[in-house]
Amino acid sequence: MGPVAIVGVGLMGGSLGLALRSLDGVEVRGADPEPEALRTALDMGAIDVACDSLEEVVRGARAVVLAAPVPELPGLARRALAAAPDDCVITDIGSTKSGVLEALTPAERGRFIGGHPVCGGERTGVAFAREGLFQGVTWFLTPGAEARSDLFGQLHALVVAVGARPVAIDAGVHDHLMALVSHLPHVLAGALVNQAADTAPGGREALRSAGPSFTDLTRVAGSNPPLWADILLANSASVLDVLRDFTTRLGEVAAALGRHDREWLLGFVGDAADARERLRRAGEAGTAAPVRVLVAVPNRPGAISEIATALGHAHINIEDLSLRPGPPDGEGELVLVVGGADAAREAVRLVGARGYRATAGGDV
Amino acid sequence: MGPVAIVGVGLMGGSLGLALRSLDGVEVRGADPEPEALRTALDMGAIDVACDSLEEVVRGARAVVLAAPVPELPGLARRALAAAPDDCVITDIGSTKSGVLEALTPAERGRFIGGHPVCGGERTGVAFAREGLFQGVTWFLTPGAEARSDLFGQLHALVVAVGARPVAIDAGVHDHLMALVSHLPHVLAGALVNQAADTAPGGREALRSAGPSFTDLTRVAGSNPPLWADILLANSASVLDVLRDFTTRLGEVAAALGRHDREWLLGFVGDAADARERLRRAGEAGTAAPVRVLVAVPNRPGAISEIATALGHAHINIEDLSLRPGPPDGEGELVLVVGGADAAREAVRLVGARGYRATAGGDV
Repeated sequence: MGPVAIVGVGLMGGSLGLALRSLDGVEVRGADPEPEALRTALDMGAIDVACDSLEEVVRGARAVVLAAPVPELPGLARRALAAAPDDCVITDIGSTKSGVLEALTPAERGRFIGGHPVCGGERTGVAFAREGLFQGVTWFLTPGAEARSDLFGQLHALVVAVGARPVAIDAGVHDHLMALVSHLPHVLAGALVNQAADTAPGGREALRSAGPSFTDLTRVAGSNPPLWADILLANSASVLDVLRDFTTRLGEVAAALGRHDREWLLGFVGDAADARERLRRAGEAGTAAPVRVLVAVPNRPGAISEIATALGHAHINIEDLSLRPGPPDGEGELVLVVGGADAAREAVRLVGARGYRATAGGDV
Repeated sequence: MGPVAIVGVGLMGGSLGLALRSLDGVEVRGADPEPEALRTALDMGAIDVACDSLEEVVRGARAVVLAAPVPELPGLARRALAAAPDDCVITDIGSTKSGVLEALTPAERGRFIGGHPVCGGERTGVAFAREGLFQGVTWFLTPGAEARSDLFGQLHALVVAVGARPVAIDAGVHDHLMALVSHLPHVLAGALVNQAADTAPGGREALRSAGPSFTDLTRVAGSNPPLWADILLANSASVLDVLRDFTTRLGEVAAALGRHDREWLLGFVGDAADARERLRRAGEAGTAAPVRVLVAVPNRPGAISEIATALGHAHINIEDLSLRPGPPDGEGELVLVVGGADAAREAVRLVGARGYRATAGGDV
């Protein structure tokens, strides 16, 4: 892995630097508008080299990771694309993905591939960075149809190298999913804690008697207001969609309470029990022995991202991915490693349905 | 402490039995409609004696604890009141309190004092009972104005003896508080997990990528459908109130997103941060050295419950409470122990404002 440039050395960027530097021979270069954050990152060993500008840090890099606030990403991406070498993949770690992709041209989306590691911390800033932050976490990748296969492979390898689980997904699907499982929960937590503070009888102090459900629901409330205001705005269309649906569901509960409908309430809570159990089981799956899947792919942009996204949507985890390029205008071979024979069979079926010849190639 | 009768030996009743039996010389008698639960409770050492009926178990008891589903409580309370000795306090552990109190006559509320320990477990049934379940938890007591002072003192002592923190509170205030900090969170968790299961893009399996906020918010979803259907119905007026307020707040968030109002969203998340911090601080308070508060009280029902409720609403924790009765129609002395000189001063002020002579009596 060639030099990796990190633009923005906060909690996330700094942790990525620590994780990369713990690998043999990876050089990590950092840039940050805050000189003190940059100095701290250098002192902590999160970066090898501190650079004064984005243009300087991306020079000679094989990967650029933009770890900056969501509204700044399109501008930074454009500058990085202009200054970085042609064999360098540009990515970001913003928690919404459609905005930055839509702000770029199709040509720019050849080298820019969105990313989103689903992790973080209550406390921000490089001082709280830690090497293991990405260990075992889902790291969404949102390659556009134009994404270059070699660069997608490079980025996939980087994500695997720091211990995360790369999952390719369509940017719009990602944003709707995040609205549902992250942004809506944050809104609910905020509204609940505000309502409790405003209206709790017996004084605010009575709330210390609150049970675990309140504590659970409000744990994420109020974290990092500027970050969350920007996330909600950047994903406002999807957040509004899921808010509307959620409000309708609350209205149904209210209606059932109003007509004293025990059967309906039993169904509501029972459905939730089933849903939660299904989610729990899904979370436990996937420790089967690795199996190779070989796919013949044409040497054109988008092929690997199409395949990876198809597998990501089916939640087949690509544990490893490598590309053996063929002759120009010919076919190369994509080698995927997935978990277990069932996943391999399903992967062969999915990519076959998209017109690629594929075969499950035995244990790794 | 005389014999304690537990009606319903499930997770809660069984845990109470274990906690009481770990104290020297407390006899615990149990009854349950399920013979197998009763046998298990006996085998586990959660009760000393298994009785065949409510009437049998309350005979000779000094305290009766009804650990049964909320809809059954009024009927059980009436039967216990009829069969138990006059010096026996009857209580319950239901999570809503107005219903059972309103179902009883003023005379019955002399000996019946509602209770609600704020704890539980994901798994129900006596097999999961444990001695330490009540350790350090808030145990709400909702004495009506008619509650007999001696019986309130008996119940308070029982709660303290099993390691819980008794907090006296008006039953209506309790129910509104629980609607806000427990019942609404359960509704939100259920609606969220149902919405996720119904609408998550990329298939349900994509949800395993959900971050900690989703996991936190949905942890309580779907627990014990019959119990929760009954709790929501028993507290439907308060739940509808808080649902209405909550829905209004969600509408405000949606409106701010619709007009792209970053300032408003910053305020929303910032307010939540402040509220959560205040709640956190409130939860940490109260390890000051114990101080005695002496109150002259007339020998009439309701005096102690009025005082305890006033302190409970101000969230002054009564760590210990004892009554030295005076002559008939005269005054007795109530000895309270509270945490710290500030709390003691505030307690004197609060009970003074209600017409009782009181004084803070130095360290314990």
